[in-house]
Amino acid sequence: MNMANRRKKIVVIGGGTGTFTVLSGLKKYPVDLSAVVSMADDGGSTGVLREEFGMLPTGDVRRALVALSSHSSKLLADLFSYRFREGSVNGHSFGNLMLTALERVTGSFEEAIAVASRLLNVQGNVIPVTYSNVRLYAELADGAVIRGETNIDIPKHDGTVSVKRVWLHPKARANPKAIHAIRNADLIIVGPGDLYTSIIPNIVVSGIRNAICQSRAKKGYITNLMTKYGETHGFSGNDFLMELEKYLAPGVFDTILINTTKPSAQILKRYKRERAQWIDYGDITGTVAVRTPLLRGGNLVRHDPAKLAKALMNMV
Amino acid sequence: MNMANRRKKIVVIGGGTGTFTVLSGLKKYPVDLSAVVSMADDGGSTGVLREEFGMLPTGDVRRALVALSSHSSKLLADLFSYRFREGSVNGHSFGNLMLTALERVTGSFEEAIAVASRLLNVQGNVIPVTYSNVRLYAELADGAVIRGETNIDIPKHDGTVSVKRVWLHPKARANPKAIHAIRNADLIIVGPGDLYTSIIPNIVVSGIRNAICQSRAKKGYITNLMTKYGETHGFSGNDFLMELEKYLAPGVFDTILINTTKPSAQILKRYKRERAQWIDYGDITGTVAVRTPLLRGGNLVRHDPAKLAKALMNMV
Repeated sequence: MNMANRRKKIVVIGGGTGTFTVLSGLKKYPVDLSAVVSMADDGGSTGVLREEFGMLPTGDVRRALVALSSHSSKLLADLFSYRFREGSVNGHSFGNLMLTALERVTGSFEEAIAVASRLLNVQGNVIPVTYSNVRLYAELADGAVIRGETNIDIPKHDGTVSVKRVWLHPKARANPKAIHAIRNADLIIVGPGDLYTSIIPNIVVSGIRNAICQSRAKKGYITNLMTKYGETHGFSGNDFLMELEKYLAPGVFDTILINTTKPSAQILKRYKRERAQWIDYGDITGTVAVRTPLLRGGNLVRHDPAKLAKALMNMV
Repeated sequence: MNMANRRKKIVVIGGGTGTFTVLSGLKKYPVDLSAVVSMADDGGSTGVLREEFGMLPTGDVRRALVALSSHSSKLLADLFSYRFREGSVNGHSFGNLMLTALERVTGSFEEAIAVASRLLNVQGNVIPVTYSNVRLYAELADGAVIRGETNIDIPKHDGTVSVKRVWLHPKARANPKAIHAIRNADLIIVGPGDLYTSIIPNIVVSGIRNAICQSRAKKGYITNLMTKYGETHGFSGNDFLMELEKYLAPGVFDTILINTTKPSAQILKRYKRERAQWIDYGDITGTVAVRTPLLRGGNLVRHDPAKLAKALMNMV
């Protein structure tokens, strides 16, 4: 086998819209893509299905499936993302209900994801970081302990108080497929995404940290654009990096991808209500920092999937 | 085109489990199958979605889609038939929710059925008899008027009182595809199924009666095995026929298919609770009556799909 022509193996670690963006961009390239997604979500439709059905969280899996869907018709992805807005099913995402029904019909969450992957013609692998049924906990700087991902994500606490540490309970055992993908990757991408509720919930799963640190893959960190009230309020760029490295290892990243385009003051003003602040990455220095325009047009402060994917493809 | 080798066009008219049985049997033959299904259902999961989403009834469409599904894996049909048994979605059939989500995503019930048909690899056409949003009404012999299919099907009234007439309100306009299928059929099959809640709700749709009567297709009537309390309590075989012909035309059927195998007394005893009685078809005479064993094995008094299909294929 000609190793130079082999499809590069890329593993994206995270959850939520950040990972969705990375996956949607990378799926246009001829690479072997795996999404390792957090299993800590317990809010919204996912939270209701966890409570009522004892389901594992479906939300991040659903988003990754849609991101990697390459069905000729966009219709199935739209269906999977459709959210009911009426009646007793109000607020439920159709994809979450479908994963729940598939879990019941097939008897396993893994098989449910496999069937949904075939239906949506998913190009790549969507890998829950764990099949352990766990909850995310956070201890704040003031000593308070918060239970549940959604209570950290949508803070009921004083959101200016910083997070001391997060962990999963009961202990989460890594999905062997996640370990395998990480070990055999050519490139591992961490982020972007909410630090304590999307990114670190993957790393604190027993075995994942070591697998990342020991993998010979290149490691890239895609930095966030904005801070998040209740999680990373007031963080500088280096604060994000230091915190992430605390859960991994110092100097673990070969590349830190930093966007250079600042949105207009008018657009940033809209984020005042949710108390999110623009992050200046001036405090991250050295050759690992790669600075390039990554912003998407429009009124939301988001990464552009195509620009992101292009920058990432330069790493492998 | 060699007309002798042309695939025969068979139209099955009804709804519910009777039609499901006929379709599952016939789909194994190389015929061009259409299911014209009642749009009067307003009970259970279907009823809730009609109330909450203003949906057209999904239940009979769903059952016909599953019956005609020929996906290599039975899994999708199982998924489509899966009924949630927990939480806020308790009692909902996944297929009903999928048709609802598809209607919202595609913008039309017709397109929702088309997409579901492709997903389930449906061999044939599932045709709602009407797209008018209607309710079924029944006037009883004692003058009482009952609104809603489910209130006739699951009687709150004295079920020994006979039904004087049923109608749809507001006026139902026939789906042009139903008229087209009926007009161009080689064989039209009516029944088996609940007379007033599955069969006649098709015939009372404006235009359907004439289309059936004027079609040059052979017309077959598959007789029910048991009476139904609240609808056809105490009916003889001929009572069923006379009532059906009242809504169509006397002598409209070329063949009346009658099962000849009587279930054991022990099995029939189980039906006492729902006050269903075995029907003896001794009062139907003449050459149109075709008598043959059609019963399925097992503890339920049901037609056997394979035996039924074989008998029906002898008609074309």
